[in-house]
Amino acid sequence: MAKGLTKRSENYSQWYNELVVKADLAENSAVRGSMVIKPYGFSIWEKMQATLDKMFKDTGHSNAYFPLFIPKSFFSKEASHVDGFAKECAVVTHYRLKNDGNNNIVVDEKAKLEEELIVRPTSETIIWNTYKNWIQSYRDLPILVNQWANVVRWEMRTRLFLRTAEFLWQEGHTAHATKQEALDETEQMINVYAEFAEKWMAVPVIKGAKSENERFAGALETYAIEALMQDGKALQAGTSHFLGQNFAKAFDVKFTDKEGKLDYVWATSWGVSTRLMGALIMAHSDDLGLVLPPKLAPIQVVIVPIYKGEEQLVQISEKANQIKKKLQDKGISVKFDDRDTHKPGFKFAEYELKGVPVRIAIGPRDLENGTLEIARRDTLEKESRAQDSVEDYVITLLDDIQENIYIKASDFRKENTCKVDTYAQFKDVIENKGGFVLAHWDGTVETEQKIKDETKATIRCIPFSFEEEEGKCIYTGKPSKRRALFAKAY
Amino acid sequence: MAKGLTKRSENYSQWYNELVVKADLAENSAVRGSMVIKPYGFSIWEKMQATLDKMFKDTGHSNAYFPLFIPKSFFSKEASHVDGFAKECAVVTHYRLKNDGNNNIVVDEKAKLEEELIVRPTSETIIWNTYKNWIQSYRDLPILVNQWANVVRWEMRTRLFLRTAEFLWQEGHTAHATKQEALDETEQMINVYAEFAEKWMAVPVIKGAKSENERFAGALETYAIEALMQDGKALQAGTSHFLGQNFAKAFDVKFTDKEGKLDYVWATSWGVSTRLMGALIMAHSDDLGLVLPPKLAPIQVVIVPIYKGEEQLVQISEKANQIKKKLQDKGISVKFDDRDTHKPGFKFAEYELKGVPVRIAIGPRDLENGTLEIARRDTLEKESRAQDSVEDYVITLLDDIQENIYIKASDFRKENTCKVDTYAQFKDVIENKGGFVLAHWDGTVETEQKIKDETKATIRCIPFSFEEEEGKCIYTGKPSKRRALFAKAY
Repeated sequence: MAKGLTKRSENYSQWYNELVVKADLAENSAVRGSMVIKPYGFSIWEKMQATLDKMFKDTGHSNAYFPLFIPKSFFSKEASHVDGFAKECAVVTHYRLKNDGNNNIVVDEKAKLEEELIVRPTSETIIWNTYKNWIQSYRDLPILVNQWANVVRWEMRTRLFLRTAEFLWQEGHTAHATKQEALDETEQMINVYAEFAEKWMAVPVIKGAKSENERFAGALETYAIEALMQDGKALQAGTSHFLGQNFAKAFDVKFTDKEGKLDYVWATSWGVSTRLMGALIMAHSDDLGLVLPPKLAPIQVVIVPIYKGEEQLVQISEKANQIKKKLQDKGISVKFDDRDTHKPGFKFAEYELKGVPVRIAIGPRDLENGTLEIARRDTLEKESRAQDSVEDYVITLLDDIQENIYIKASDFRKENTCKVDTYAQFKDVIENKGGFVLAHWDGTVETEQKIKDETKATIRCIPFSFEEEEGKCIYTGKPSKRRALFAKAY
Repeated sequence: MAKGLTKRSENYSQWYNELVVKADLAENSAVRGSMVIKPYGFSIWEKMQATLDKMFKDTGHSNAYFPLFIPKSFFSKEASHVDGFAKECAVVTHYRLKNDGNNNIVVDEKAKLEEELIVRPTSETIIWNTYKNWIQSYRDLPILVNQWANVVRWEMRTRLFLRTAEFLWQEGHTAHATKQEALDETEQMINVYAEFAEKWMAVPVIKGAKSENERFAGALETYAIEALMQDGKALQAGTSHFLGQNFAKAFDVKFTDKEGKLDYVWATSWGVSTRLMGALIMAHSDDLGLVLPPKLAPIQVVIVPIYKGEEQLVQISEKANQIKKKLQDKGISVKFDDRDTHKPGFKFAEYELKGVPVRIAIGPRDLENGTLEIARRDTLEKESRAQDSVEDYVITLLDDIQENIYIKASDFRKENTCKVDTYAQFKDVIENKGGFVLAHWDGTVETEQKIKDETKATIRCIPFSFEEEEGKCIYTGKPSKRRALFAKAY
């Protein structure tokens, strides 16, 4: 199965594209820029969804659903928002097809909409138009709502999971009585995302604030989590926006506070998308295929029988099913692959390609000796173990794999993060080594843009965790108080 | 809260519309025909989704995701399919907006799509175009895939949940090597829907086959579950379609069977939607508001304190929280409403409106006596009980309510189902009494259409469960072998 998978060192980009398709995660559809998420890929996304959904609910949020279509006029109400999204909007103009008389199905020009509808690229406008009717007084606040939905942004260059015209995501939209409460919410949600990325995806992330250039269209602050991929490029994995009173003003959403005073409502929005699948794949996988963190793997353990003839298969199957049952009783998801159409070697390669964390093989000698062979996907190490209490061992092993791939990714990031103090050094690292680069910057949009134009590197964020430090902008020499995190990015 | 809710006997339709909005289930949006599903309503839908999703997985299905947009040419490939949906399609024609120079945001005419994209009203065409690449041999079959998605059908007259331009649903799309396997799947899924309707929603349904007139556009057989609402109108709550080889032929999907022979693949599709919310509401609710089956109620038990002054509230809260904890430990979802902004009477009415199955009230005398008051939403009966082991009593009570509302709905259906043998009787029942009418019919499209034109009643299905019986068509007098189930329908 893994035959034909390009090596990362040869062509990282091609390796990724092939892996997504060969591991049955997703494929391009007949609709430009839209993907089909296949059952195996979708089952990983479902695990992500379930985990995040619980985290959102544990922090007080409820789900709701708002319309797919947004009237064009709503879009125009927040100026920077429409600037940010107008160039990539799918527009519905008609509501009927007809037969033209020659058996061609054509758009019925009589069924033209008075006002065009935009397929949502994000839902701030339709939601704040709705909130207007939900909010009169401070008693109606906060509103803590999330929606799981599909959105459309007409991207010109698309890549499976990373950048698609249609993608799946969740978007939280909250409304608050005070600025501080909205800021706290913005921070809480970026922390939720970081925890999910690190503890479930095993992907270390850097939390920070976006520069003005990279902020969400309509936000006063955008917080992001940034992850480093194996090719030294950064990937923005989630964002949380403090929207101030911008959307409340655009849609005239006011509330009466405890003192009876009218004020505009404060807002946040935050989202992660199927892009997380791209981060997951690129952070851990190798030349044999996917490496999945056990907490998100649809199949955590696969059992493969090694046999000759029907009789051996029957005997091994009995034992394998006992082990499967024991593992399932501990809450582990197990597949016993007794297909007789494929050889063990083929199956081994297939589950390596699909990133199943633990593989158990049982042969006739194992039956005699009460043993089995356990292989772990992350290190590819194999060992022979007793069948007794294998379930306890597997639990420990799954935890160990989860931790190990996180550490591996963290070590990689450490090795590929550096501080530079001159623009020459900066360009050298960005061009030749890649990775995260911490450098002083004078804080202006102009300088950031020039650096981007000259090196393709952008400011991923101003990390929350870094301390104040006097320095000089690598580009202009002007004074700077803290380093920004630069990288080339997806 | 319930003040102002129109009585069912006065205006059933208005009662429904008001109830949906007042109970915080959904509301009309600014986008014609599209609704906003509010958090309380969405939490019921989430419970439906979770239950159905488990039932689908238990019967071997996996989830996947296919594009929102369908190229117009795909649509035209299955003739009856496009006939069925062309008149209600939202069409995307452009992919960019621009500023016209006078600060108006307009559609950029330069960004016109070469081929228009249809917002999916259902996904058979895009999915069968995808399956073409997934299927070569019998080894690739069956494909058992479901997707949870939004779809758009441009309905002219819309009603919250029952008929909206955009709605949420699931659509299963399966591919099989044999006709029999596809027929078995079609039947299995209508059985899954019936089980869900009866055991979770507590709504009795009649399973049967649709007449040719009412079949899905592109299907050879459509099986449906039909429920009876309190106003005597039927509601189609779910459908499962045997598509034969129609879509395989339209998209040229062939497979090699075990004998090496090429044949077209057999297909089914099946779906339920947010329309189920409408069925749930209309089947059980009363003039005070919603009546929810405990298995789908987001809040199963609400505890309301009856107190004067802060001190009493503190004492009662302590007891209430103990009881809440005990109930939660048994897996019951509980809300303790200690808001001091509203009186108990207001809260009672609010939870009646929202259909919370069980209400517990605790006052100062209850504290002294170790008692509490339990009220059940379905019968509105109240009783005083000891606080000890209240959790066991509540479990029994929730089961009892679940069963009772099912029996009530079944009794209603029994009282409102009749057999008639003449067209005069038929018209009399349909016009004056409503409900299900079992009548002989000659099996022709023409007769069905005439009866529909004259009485507005349609054939809901040919029930699976009824026995062969010689009779004469009520309209033409021609011979008939079994009765069809007629009703006016939503």
